[in-house]
Order: sequence, then C-alpha cells, then structure tokens
Amino acid sequence: MVNLCSDNVAGALPAVLDALVEAGRGAAMPYGADPWSARLDALVAEIFERPAMVFPVATGTAANSLALACLTPPWGAVYCHDEAHVMVDECGAPEFFTGGAKLIGIGGRDSRLDPQALRAAVTQAAGSDHPVHVARPSAVTITTVSEGGTLYAPADVAAIADVCRTFSLGLHMDGARFAGTLAALGCSPADLTWKAGVDILSLGATKGGALAAEAVVVFDPALAETLAYRRKKSGHLVSKMRFLSAQLVAWLSEGRWLSAARHANGLAQRLGAGLDTVPGARLVAPVEANMAFVAFDQPLSDGLRGRGHAFYPWPAHGPQAVRLVTSFETTDEDVEAFLADARAIAAGR
Amino acid sequence: MVNLCSDNVAGALPAVLDALVEAGRGAAMPYGADPWSARLDALVAEIFERPAMVFPVATGTAANSLALACLTPPWGAVYCHDEAHVMVDECGAPEFFTGGAKLIGIGGRDSRLDPQALRAAVTQAAGSDHPVHVARPSAVTITTVSEGGTLYAPADVAAIADVCRTFSLGLHMDGARFAGTLAALGCSPADLTWKAGVDILSLGATKGGALAAEAVVVFDPALAETLAYRRKKSGHLVSKMRFLSAQLVAWLSEGRWLSAARHANGLAQRLGAGLDTVPGARLVAPVEANMAFVAFDQPLSDGLRGRGHAFYPWPAHGPQAVRLVTSFETTDEDVEAFLADARAIAAGR
Amino acid sequence: MVNLCSDNVAGALPAVLDALVEAGRGAAMPYGADPWSARLDALVAEIFERPAMVFPVATGTAANSLALACLTPPWGAVYCHDEAHVMVDECGAPEFFTGGAKLIGIGGRDSRLDPQALRAAVTQAAGSDHPVHVARPSAVTITTVSEGGTLYAPADVAAIADVCRTFSLGLHMDGARFAGTLAALGCSPADLTWKAGVDILSLGATKGGALAAEAVVVFDPALAETLAYRRKKSGHLVSKMRFLSAQLVAWLSEGRWLSAARHANGLAQRLGAGLDTVPGARLVAPVEANMAFVAFDQPLSDGLRGRGHAFYPWPAHGPQAVRLVTSFETTDEDVEAFLADARAIAAGR
Amino acid sequence: MVNLCSDNVAGALPAVLDALVEAGRGAAMPYGADPWSARLDALVAEIFERPAMVFPVATGTAANSLALACLTPPWGAVYCHDEAHVMVDECGAPEFFTGGAKLIGIGGRDSRLDPQALRAAVTQAAGSDHPVHVARPSAVTITTVSEGGTLYAPADVAAIADVCRTFSLGLHMDGARFAGTLAALGCSPADLTWKAGVDILSLGATKGGALAAEAVVVFDPALAETLAYRRKKSGHLVSKMRFLSAQLVAWLSEGRWLSAARHANGLAQRLGAGLDTVPGARLVAPVEANMAFVAFDQPLSDGLRGRGHAFYPWPAHGPQAVRLVTSFETTDEDVEAFLADARAIAAGR
Repeated sequence: MVNLCSDNVAGALPAVLDALVEAGRGAAMPYGADPWSARLDALVAEIFERPAMVFPVATGTAANSLALACLTPPWGAVYCHDEAHVMVDECGAPEFFTGGAKLIGIGGRDSRLDPQALRAAVTQAAGSDHPVHVARPSAVTITTVSEGGTLYAPADVAAIADVCRTFSLGLHMDGARFAGTLAALGCSPADLTWKAGVDILSLGATKGGALAAEAVVVFDPALAETLAYRRKKSGHLVSKMRFLSAQLVAWLSEGRWLSAARHANGLAQRLGAGLDTVPGARLVAPVEANMAFVAFDQPLSDGLRGRGHAFYPWPAHGPQAVRLVTSFETTDEDVEAFLADARAIAAGR
Repeated sequence: MVNLCSDNVAGALPAVLDALVEAGRGAAMPYGADPWSARLDALVAEIFERPAMVFPVATGTAANSLALACLTPPWGAVYCHDEAHVMVDECGAPEFFTGGAKLIGIGGRDSRLDPQALRAAVTQAAGSDHPVHVARPSAVTITTVSEGGTLYAPADVAAIADVCRTFSLGLHMDGARFAGTLAALGCSPADLTWKAGVDILSLGATKGGALAAEAVVVFDPALAETLAYRRKKSGHLVSKMRFLSAQLVAWLSEGRWLSAARHANGLAQRLGAGLDTVPGARLVAPVEANMAFVAFDQPLSDGLRGRGHAFYPWPAHGPQAVRLVTSFETTDEDVEAFLADARAIAAGR
Repeated sequence: MVNLCSDNVAGALPAVLDALVEAGRGAAMPYGADPWSARLDALVAEIFERPAMVFPVATGTAANSLALACLTPPWGAVYCHDEAHVMVDECGAPEFFTGGAKLIGIGGRDSRLDPQALRAAVTQAAGSDHPVHVARPSAVTITTVSEGGTLYAPADVAAIADVCRTFSLGLHMDGARFAGTLAALGCSPADLTWKAGVDILSLGATKGGALAAEAVVVFDPALAETLAYRRKKSGHLVSKMRFLSAQLVAWLSEGRWLSAARHANGLAQRLGAGLDTVPGARLVAPVEANMAFVAFDQPLSDGLRGRGHAFYPWPAHGPQAVRLVTSFETTDEDVEAFLADARAIAAGR
Repeated sequence: MVNLCSDNVAGALPAVLDALVEAGRGAAMPYGADPWSARLDALVAEIFERPAMVFPVATGTAANSLALACLTPPWGAVYCHDEAHVMVDECGAPEFFTGGAKLIGIGGRDSRLDPQALRAAVTQAAGSDHPVHVARPSAVTITTVSEGGTLYAPADVAAIADVCRTFSLGLHMDGARFAGTLAALGCSPADLTWKAGVDILSLGATKGGALAAEAVVVFDPALAETLAYRRKKSGHLVSKMRFLSAQLVAWLSEGRWLSAARHANGLAQRLGAGLDTVPGARLVAPVEANMAFVAFDQPLSDGLRGRGHAFYPWPAHGPQAVRLVTSFETTDEDVEAFLADARAIAAGR
C-alpha cells in the first residue's frame, strides 16, 4: 500500500527530527534572536553565495503570499501560470495578503509560463489609456518544480526575468520543490535564483523532509523591512523560532536537502519508466523531477486503488491521468510493489 | 543565569518531542485527515466535556485573529482590555484578519476587563442615532492569564458573558496561558469556557511546553465553516498537520499541560514571595499564575542583569517594575540562584 | 467634432439638472432620511413591480463592488466574462471590497457569459478534493449592455440563473447601461432582473444622463443590512443624499431613462449602418444598443481623428476596430456630420 | 422650525447649483481630463500658494480614508483625538482603506490633540523591544473645526507637526470645516496647512455649500501616485469628473467658501450668546466656529423639540448638552425664531 498522493504525506527526515530534539532544551530568546536562526542565516548566505534575508514560516501558502505582498501594491497585477498553486490552490491567499491585488493567469506549455505570452499581456496592460483602471503590472511568480512536474532551468528563469526587467516587475519563485529542481538540473542555488533575476524565493523544506518549515529568502534587502511587519501582522512570526530554524538548518546541512530530492526524483523516474511498459498505463509527460503523470485505464486505476495504493486524479493531463509523487521516504520496495501490482492487474491476475 | 523574559524562551516538554519523533515516520494524509488529528479531536471533546471543532495553528496571533474574524464582520467592534495582547502586541493582526474591524480598549483593574465599563461602552455604541457610522458591537475578547498576571475565574467570565448575551456579542478567550489558569483555580476547562459563555477559545500550548502549537477551539459549530476557509486563506493550514496535532495530543495527555503549568505557577509564587523579602525589591501585584511583577531598585536591577539574569521592564506596573515569568522548564535551582543573587546584591556583596 | 469615446463624455439631462436645482434649497435630514430618497424607494418598487432596497452611490465601480461583496465571502469565487468591466477595468476594486475574493474569467461568444462554460467551471471548483484550497464558488456577475455592445435577453439571464441555482450562487447584474437593454429589447425591468433570477442590480444612471448617480438595487432584503454597513465603511454613504436621490428620481420619472436610451440606441444603429457603406469601414458586430464597433482602415481612422472626432480603439474586436458610443446628448447632426466626414475621407476629399 | 442637527442638512449654494447647470451640457473627457478639473487645479494652487495635487471625491469619509492610506502602511498606527470623526464616526473606514492600520486615540482638552500626550504615546511605541509587534507610528490626523467646535490655529498645527517631524510621521488634516477655521482665524490656507507641516488635507466643501464634493489636497507629489490608484480601487473615481470639479471651483471662487463660513460662524456666535442668557440654558463651550454646545434643562429641550426645532444631544459635553450647528443656509430669522422660542419656553409661555 503505497501513498503517492503528494510529498506532503511523508513524515520527516530523521536528521530533522534529531535537530528538534537537540534544540528542545534550555532557554533561547524568541522571534529569531537565537543561535539556530543565526546559523540559518549564515548557511543560506553560504549556499546562495550572497547575503540574504531569511524569514522562516510554517507553510508554503504563507511564504508565497508574503513574498508576493512585498512585490505588488494592492492595485497591482501578479502574473503566473494558469495552473500555478498560488492561482488555483491557495484559496485566494495572495489576494488577501496583498490587499486585493489581481493574479493574472498566463498560459504556457508543460506548465511553464511562456515568456512571449507574458510579454504580450504585460505590454497590453502597461499601455492602457486609463492606467488607474487596470491593475498595474507589478510582479511575476513562477513555480519550480511546476504543477505539471516540469522544471525551469536558469535560462528559462532568465527569459522571464528579461520581461520583468523591461517593465520593472518583481520576480518571485515558488520553490516548494526547489531542491528537486536543483537535484535534477545540477545547477547551483545562485544560478537558479538571483543570478537569473529572482528577487524573492519561497524555499520549501516541508515537502522535502521537514515537519513544517519554509523560508522566504529575500535577495533585495529593501524588501525585507516590509516583510518583517507583514509576517507578524499575518500571524506567521513564530515565537520559539529556533524550532523552525533548526529544521531548516538540519535540512540544508550536509547536502541532505539535495540527496533527499535526488532520491525522490530517481524513484519517480523508475516509476514512470516502469509504468510506461505496463499495458493500460501510459506516461503522459516526461518525468523531470519527483512526479510521474500517468494515464491509467479504468481497471488499472481501480485495481491499484483496490489494493490500497493512493494517488490523485490529475485532469489537467487528461481525463484518465493521475499524479504519482515520490518523496524522500518512498522506498525502492514501494516502487517495486506498485509496479508489480500494476503488472499483475494488467495481466488480469 | 536565569532567563525569565517570557515563557516563550523555554524549549519543549520531552513528551512533546518524543511524540514528534514517534509521528515522524510513514505516510499520513495531509491537512488533518490523519490519526493524530482524530485523536486530538477526541481528546479535546473529552477534556471539555462536549464536542468541539479544533483548528491547530502555529501561533497565538493566528489563533486569536482567526477566532475574532469568526465573531465580527469588517464593520464590527471588538471590545478588549486596554492592555490586551491583541490590542498592543499583535501589530494589528486582528484588524487584518477581520477586514478592518475596530478593537476598542476598555479599562479594568488588575488587567481584567470591567463588566460595568464594558456594558457602558457597548450601550453607548449600540444606541447611536446613525448605526452605520459606528463600528457595530460584535465581540468581546478576554485573556487569562491576563497581561498583568491575573486570572478570570468562571464567575468573572460569566459576568462578561452576561453583557455579551444582552447585546448578542460573541465571546472569545485568549488562552495563551489557559493551562496556568486552570492549574491556579482548580476549575474544569468546561467551567472556564463554554459553561461560562465562551464561544471560541485560543488554547495555547506553545508557552506551556509545545514547540509551536495552538488550537482554536470552537464550541459553536456554525462558526467552524468560515474558520476552515479563513485558516487556509491566511496561510495557516499546515499540510503535515500530524505534527501540530501530535504536539497538542502529547501536551494534553496524562495531565501534562496542567502539571507543567502547576510547576511554573509554584515557582513564580516562590520567586515573588522570596523577592518581596529582599531589600530594594517589592512585589507590586499578587502572584496568581506564572508571572511575578516586582519593582527593583536600580542597583538590584543592574546587578541581576550584570550577573546574566534576563527579564523585561514592565512599565504598566510602574517605572521600576519588571516582569518575571517562569515556565515548565524553570527549576527550583533557577529560583534559588536568582534569589541568592538578589540577596547578595542587596547586601552589597 | 463628435466625441464618441464613451457615454460618460456626455453632460446631464436637463430634467436631472432641474431636479438638483429644485432639491437645492432648504433643510433635509442627511443619509437618506429625506423625501427624495423616500420617493426613489417608491419609484423603484413601482418600476420593478416589487419592494426592493435601493442604495444610491456615486460610481459604477462602487455599485458593482458593493454588490459583489454582499454575495461572496473573502474566500469566494465570482464568475464573470473575461472582458467584464469588473475584471479588466476596475483596478481590482471587487477584490478590495470583498476582502480578497477571486474573479474567475469565463469565455462566451459576443461578450456574453456562456452558461455551459460557466457550469463546467463551477462544477470543477465545487468538486475539489480539498474544498478549502479552492476559492468557493459564490457569485456570478453579468453585464448588460455587455462590453462588446451585446445584450442579455431575459432568457439569457435565466440560463445563467439556472447554473446559479444549482450551486447556490448569487447573481449580480452590472446594469451600467441597463436602460439601453430595456430600450432595445422592450422587456420590463422585472423580467430582466428578479423574475429571471437576479439578486442584486447595479442600476446605472450616469451614462444615461445623470451627473454621478448609480443605485444598488437589492431584491433580497437579507443582503441589505450588510450593504448599509459596507457602503459607509467604504466611504460611499453621501451625507446630502437628496442630491443622489433627486438625480435618480428625475431620470426614472416620466420614462426619461428609457427615451434617452432609445435615442442613443437609434443613433448608434444609424451610425453603424451608415459607416458599413463607407469604403474602408466595416461594421464588425451587430449594433444591439448604443455602441457600434467598426473596423477603419488607417486613412479613415487618421482622417476622422484629424478632423477632431474622438473614439477609442477596441482591440478585442480586431486590430483595426474602434468603439463608437452614442449617448442621450448625441444628435442627428452629430451622426450626419461624422458620416459625411467619413465619406469625404474615403472619397479622398 | 429650525434644523440645527448638522451643516449637512443644508442644501447647496446657488452659485454651486448654477455652476452645475452651466457644466451640464456638451462633451468633456472623463476622469478629470476636462476644463473644470484643470481650473480647479489652478485655483487650488493659487489659493494655497503652491502647486498641489487635487483629488475630488464625493464624501469626507473617502477623503480622510484615502489620505490616511497614503500615510500609513497596513502595519502602521495613526494617532488622532479620542473624539475624532475618523475614530468614532466612520465605521472603521480608515482601517478598511489602509489594510488594517490601527487608529490610536489620544486625549486633549477642548477636542484638540495634545502635543505632549502625542509625543509620549509615540515615544513609547517607537521604543518597543519588539518593533514588529507594535503598530508602527506612521501618521497623525487632526480635525479643524474639531468635533468639539474648537479650532487649531497655525501654531497648534505646528506643535503637532513638530512631533511628526521627530518621528517621521505624516500629518493629515481633516478639513471638513476648513473654511470655517479660516473664516474664524483670518489666517491663510497656506499658513494653516503646508507652512505649518500638513502633508495632506481633506478639503471639505459639502458642509460649506456643495452638494457632495470634497477634495484630497496633496502637498507632497510622491504621495499622489498611490492616491490615484487607491481612489479608483475604492470606487471613488467619478467618471464625469467635471461635476465634482465644477462644484469645487464655484465654491472656492470669489471668496464664496469663506463668506459662507463667516456667515455660519456669526450666527452660531449669536445663537450661543443669546441662549446663554436664557434661564435653563447654558453655553458649555466657547463658540469658535459654527457650532454652539449648550446645556438645556429638560423643559427647554423638550419644548424646543416640541415646536419642531431639531438638534442632536452631545453627551461628550455633558448629559444635558446638545450641539447646535449653523450653516450658510441658516438665516438671521432662524436664529431669532429659535431664541424667541427658547425664551418663551423658559418663561413658561
């Protein structure tokens, strides 16, 4: 019985739990004035090859919404892919945090925002006869690993950033699965973010092995002051901050974040490749990170669920498509068992 | 070197950490559809002697603001004590979550909201010639343990609830230190809340021994549906909910929450009583829970800080007053050491 | 030199100005407790064949946003046509008034919301596995005369209302040019609104001959109480209300609103038909009310502007398209002069 | 039967009505691109002796809230007098427009904000150990004529502005009765505003003789860009702007605003002085502008109301106090009739 619904069904990396236990005794000043938070700042600076402001929070929705609120006024427009998590899966949190900014969905193949379509949309909005009638183009947000399982390489980010520069838009990256992208592409954190034009990153650790820890990483210090207030005003300033920072430090240390992501990516590859050879199953998208999108015929879908396996339908990839997500906790045995059951069902056994 | 700045400088109860480690492996459905969350619901129902909706979140500011947003429309008024945390220490979070409701500060001795003053203020607002000009009286919030270290007994709560009933106001209790109140008064959770007229409780575990876990406990199911949406829209729906629920379950189980609070209360009593006998120190308020408010003369204050002890000034209790907060983690030795240093400084040693 | 940019470039109907002068002297109680406002209530009840709550405001953006805020919670979704004024021309005002609800653009031929597409979109959102992640379907808004100059007949409204009923969505009509629709279709105000399923109407008088007067007409009394507070809280409660009410009373009396609209509609018909016979001009949409959409070749477009005529490009109808809007103030002579200039330019004169 | 409830029970100055009629015919571009709006800009610049941005809106609540939103972030605090209209009479509109900023009431004799009390409050907030917990001091707003009928002279404004400068706070003046202050003090508009340190003024014409017209006058151009967007997003950008501008131009021209205010002030003086000699009546505050606050004994209060006179109770000045407000439309005969009735009732006739 393998649960492939999402990487948020996983538990936590042992090293992260150990770090919490170690951090768990003794007095430490609250709200970030503790040694773990100082260590986190240093570690992020080292990993990203420059100083950056780091704001740990407990959820990805908070990280994304806080980041966007720093990049747009209430009368601004934020451009994103039609399928973006901020657009379809956060209950309008960005609209709430920004005071009513508009999210504008833009298309793009393979769940990646198309720079040409973006440029066309922003050009039209910026050219209005009545500027104050139109939500002012203010920011762009991209997600990697995207909702469709695809990646933005540094050159993809740079192409978006080029549009941003033309129109003075802020660029946010929703990195709920940032580590998965790095693991797949082999590029550096700096290459994928500020060197390519990203202003703020939501660095997600929860899906990668933390209990509940994300960090808003701000490369432009001017944006950090408003973020400090926004985090408090929205109830996201945790008093015992050491417990968020300790998770992030453990996750980022000794390459754990990347090796956990590499593990998950590899299993998704095996799962996708394996299923593509099973009659009644068909890989409907290349596996670029830790998600495989597969079309199952009804007997296969029913059969796998009947044996206790769990996964979500994914209508964006077709009526029969499902999404299979691996995590740091998924095992070789899980993948083998799932494939074996698929083959057995397909064979009528 | 004893840190008495706040109970949020403490770490976490060993049982809470153990629970996280136990919860840390294996798949569980996200967003509350996990066994720990189910256990939490059952445990709260048992402890409060009735079914209730439980919404875990990571911070007290979030718990309070979400609760108030369920009780007031954007054009409502929320009455609280002048010194209330929601009024002076949350950066306007309630105003943000409610869409711009007004908090109205009301006086009251010993940091407790005065029912007569409350009734007078609501009566005046409700009697306006132009009702839509005036923020509509909608809710009351009280804090126990209060900011001044005092308690609301069930009869105190009932006196406030009586005003609420007259004017159809919702009643919220900020229970960041709810356990401390129960431990001091020996009353039941039900007696102090819904039996006395409380509609929503912010049940705080962080200060009492969790890492970062609070629960909004809703006694009126009609309020729960909006809360579910509000929690998500404000970024406070944690995906791996088991890790919040597990903290709360461990803390509430086997009377840990009460024994931890009793321990902290007892040490504050000893600390207060001990200091009151030290020349240059004077207890400025009775110690009802885990906070002692003491006026130190300057040599004493400087001397204690010079020896590495930490505490905050508390101008609300006078220019020389400081607040000393004990926690589950404070030890008998801490209290003895602090008292010994105070005596030594007073003696000129 | 004819200005066809919009019907908001017109002045005011003489009868409306006369009414202001008559209302201009003597004491009257503020905020709607005046005889003109009482007269307005009675008049709307008579015209709409049922009691209704009437809330005059100064702008259409306010009327629309207030109406929508009564129909959706902050976590709701409001469905509208992709081209709707609320979507593209109000700078995110609905998002601001609603506390961050999402507007979801839906397609539809001829600028009319397609009921099938609407049903499909709502069905998908309502069927989410994680309801609180998705903005909850709450309301639909339609505009007649639409942004593309087309109309909703009562049957068109009823088809939308049928979807609303299935999913318990509120239905709002943006009637900035409501009178124009009635004049064109010859149906009754009741037929086009509450009898067809509309819950709240923005009844626009400004474009039809008032100075600045719109009325939110609420057919469901339960929605009216929140609207009274929302109007004040957003600064839209005018103190000397008689001056808004007097405009609306004068406009609605003696059929002035309909005859003014009929006049404008007739001239748009003549203008469209006339231009369609001019070489280099082509009517690109049927003229249903007071807007003609015409594609001009460059010499014609430049020539008309060179002679002082004014109109806006309308890229939604093609790169060469322009929008020509007539009003109560446009004259036969204006239309003849415009056509004569067009013919002269086309003839190279 | 004299209505002294408020100056908003009056109609409109004949010159203002004439201006509307004159502006009422012919095409003019919308949203402020019309000759009347250009004339208004020039007139304001002349009257205030410097260029300023002028944003006409229809209500004072909108003017105040928009102004404050330009001066404070959502996490800011705005200081005002306890009795200020923005605090007690606008249903939390400033909280809504600012995204949840806090209004902090400060005392002060005679309804004037006390600079010392202001300085003390801001000093405390600015000195917090945890800055992000406390709403950040951002702006101050003062009202002249104040709610208690008193005035701020230029030196009073400068004393407040001095505190603002120390803490980099913006200074807003709610000038709903700005003309009344000028008329009473004989100082210049410049002296009372930017020369004394005011950043934004709500210039109110409605109470002084317009139908519904206020102007936000911004002396610092950097604040104007956000105001343009905020005005639209809150639905306060009127399309046929000429009709707001024409009211303001007529009111400001030929000294009409000042002579109308002088008239009202003079009658309030006579009314107050006259009533103070009537047995059973007592002036409870000096009459500085167009409001007289008088304590009536019950027979006098009942008798005057019984004869059809209208006025509001004013508990802030004592249980028997009432507020009597004169306007440009109040006549000598009104005052005489009111006084005669008071004397007759007192004499038992």
